[in-house]
Amino acid sequence: MSVDGPSNRPVHGPEHPQSVGYTRAEKIVLFDPDSPLKLEAGGLLAPVEIEYESYGQLSAAKDNAIVVCHALTGDAHLAGWDSDPSGPLRDYRKNKPGWWDELVGPGKPIDTRRFFVVCANVIGSCYGSTGPMSLNPVTGRPYGLTFPVVTVGDWARLQLMLLDRLGIASLYAVVGGSVGGQQALEIALSRPEMVRRLIILSAAYRITAQGLGFNSVARHSIINDPNFNGGDYYDGSPPLMGLAAARMLAHITYLSEESMGHKFGRRLQDKSAPDFTPTGVEFEVESYLRHQGESFVRRYDANSYLYITRSMDYYDASAWGDGDLVRAAALIKARSLVVSFSSDWLFPPELCREFVQAMCRAGRSVTYVDIPSHYGHDAFLVETETVSRLIDSFLRH
Amino acid sequence: MSVDGPSNRPVHGPEHPQSVGYTRAEKIVLFDPDSPLKLEAGGLLAPVEIEYESYGQLSAAKDNAIVVCHALTGDAHLAGWDSDPSGPLRDYRKNKPGWWDELVGPGKPIDTRRFFVVCANVIGSCYGSTGPMSLNPVTGRPYGLTFPVVTVGDWARLQLMLLDRLGIASLYAVVGGSVGGQQALEIALSRPEMVRRLIILSAAYRITAQGLGFNSVARHSIINDPNFNGGDYYDGSPPLMGLAAARMLAHITYLSEESMGHKFGRRLQDKSAPDFTPTGVEFEVESYLRHQGESFVRRYDANSYLYITRSMDYYDASAWGDGDLVRAAALIKARSLVVSFSSDWLFPPELCREFVQAMCRAGRSVTYVDIPSHYGHDAFLVETETVSRLIDSFLRH
Repeated sequence: MSVDGPSNRPVHGPEHPQSVGYTRAEKIVLFDPDSPLKLEAGGLLAPVEIEYESYGQLSAAKDNAIVVCHALTGDAHLAGWDSDPSGPLRDYRKNKPGWWDELVGPGKPIDTRRFFVVCANVIGSCYGSTGPMSLNPVTGRPYGLTFPVVTVGDWARLQLMLLDRLGIASLYAVVGGSVGGQQALEIALSRPEMVRRLIILSAAYRITAQGLGFNSVARHSIINDPNFNGGDYYDGSPPLMGLAAARMLAHITYLSEESMGHKFGRRLQDKSAPDFTPTGVEFEVESYLRHQGESFVRRYDANSYLYITRSMDYYDASAWGDGDLVRAAALIKARSLVVSFSSDWLFPPELCREFVQAMCRAGRSVTYVDIPSHYGHDAFLVETETVSRLIDSFLRH
Repeated sequence: MSVDGPSNRPVHGPEHPQSVGYTRAEKIVLFDPDSPLKLEAGGLLAPVEIEYESYGQLSAAKDNAIVVCHALTGDAHLAGWDSDPSGPLRDYRKNKPGWWDELVGPGKPIDTRRFFVVCANVIGSCYGSTGPMSLNPVTGRPYGLTFPVVTVGDWARLQLMLLDRLGIASLYAVVGGSVGGQQALEIALSRPEMVRRLIILSAAYRITAQGLGFNSVARHSIINDPNFNGGDYYDGSPPLMGLAAARMLAHITYLSEESMGHKFGRRLQDKSAPDFTPTGVEFEVESYLRHQGESFVRRYDANSYLYITRSMDYYDASAWGDGDLVRAAALIKARSLVVSFSSDWLFPPELCREFVQAMCRAGRSVTYVDIPSHYGHDAFLVETETVSRLIDSFLRH
């Protein structure tokens, strides 16, 4: 395995037999203005459009569905090649497979010959489901900050409504990484009898005070960008610099000190001696972070970043047990697999283990694996071979 | 010891026998425009004004001087009570003792009855020594970004020049924490025969790629503040929001995940249920970080923050051995004490140990202590009792 990532990640073209091929997102509309969705935080929302993709065939018994929940800035395009990556902010999908193509496809661990796989974009996002960029039907203008606060609980509830529309009453498994793992957990908690297997990667039942702190600084950067304009920037210039700063910061938390050391160390960027500039780029790691910031702002909406990080802040699965995690865990009926990564400091293994221990104390079925890795939080998307083996094995048995 | 910090930190009023009492900063001017200081990075600077404080009496043998080097945003006001805290950005000194008053004073570990103690403000700072806020004699306006890049090496050189002016040719000890520890190390490397004891707290011979990354994001926030105006903001509104974001971020790196958990956890700020706001304050930790940002911008200059973090970026003591740390360490003649703190993740113990190991391999005298603490990088300023005992003992023998 190279320090830049495993060398043998299977990236399959759309014609490859292990690819789901070209995909097209579907949309459903839930709720109408006469009877809007009442959100967990108290707000109302209608219409609620959900963008999702699905692959494979639902069995006659309707017992082979797997839901995959995306991470913070992810989307419904889980696998294969987007047949129309031309929507707003979607340029990044061109010539790139879905975000978990390595795991999902014919003959892959989440095997689309065997399973009917569904991935839905969360509300609050900017990738097709209703969010702050969507038009507010009352004003005819984008919601911006008039968009109501949404929670992981809302995401789970809408996911379940979508499944209901698709005629699915039982899930073979629900799978997610990072805040997607929190959504998976929430689904297993809110409809225990429906979920037979739960797979949580790089996620815990809540984020730490440090995580709250990082999210808070990220939002501070966005809100104080001169172009933010109270979130009403869709007619003008978006707060790109603030959003870039937020992403640069977040990106540091997705890596580990060790992986940054391996990848960049203190090497200078394309030079043998520093230029001695207080404001320019000297080190490779600076150049890399700037690049991460710049490419992110082309594909993500700043208001969505505010809302989605807030959803993450609020989430605390122990609320299902009125603050008692063991009581919460006792609700779960799914066989569970929890995977942490040794160098993940956003969802550190010790925190992941708190949930695992609660499951054990509650007498629930849980398998826990801590994978030694220096890739930090990103490891769940990078350590593909190990994750593939674990998921393949867990889904088979 | 309480989670808010040790309960028994001695904070002595100016009349207390263990206080150095009221202090007044001195200034010396080095270099004139005809023969300016040639900086390590190549720039020229004149005049170079150095603000410093000193306490105690230099012995007849001139062998009892101790230099203390301040940290990133510190100043020359090491101990006692500022008799005139009215300079620009100096309001924070009112009714507060110097930044290391617990350690420095009559009968304290750095005992001013015994030692002549000197603390100088570094150039690039905004606390009295020449920096970006100073007037450029050529233009009659503040330097801003026309200020030359300064390095830890420059700080050490100027410190030595100051000592020369004070008639001091030999140091009983040089002491510093964080980037102040790097300056102390640099002094011991650049004039080995002059330094008899070296004490480095919470510092390593260079920062990590992750540290470079955090500094880079902090500067990004400042530079992209709408008020930054290329660093030329002294006539108008300074880039306070960007500077606040930089400080909030840095502040997270000064604490530890554990201490943030102890101190704030996920508690809400003065309420029992969240307001569900994407932009407001919900959690105590958010309120705390905002407060840190807001109070910092009243006392620090954004340009200085750019320059001082850059100095930290560039520093790598292994340069003294052309990249070989053991060869660099071999230059040191001082008996050395290196102190790290278990939860410091800005200068993690493993990194501090690299220097200690190099000292051992080079056959140099080094004592190393890793103090178990959950206070993170800030521990060197918080774990006063332990640090006092170590310094007291090291200075006695």
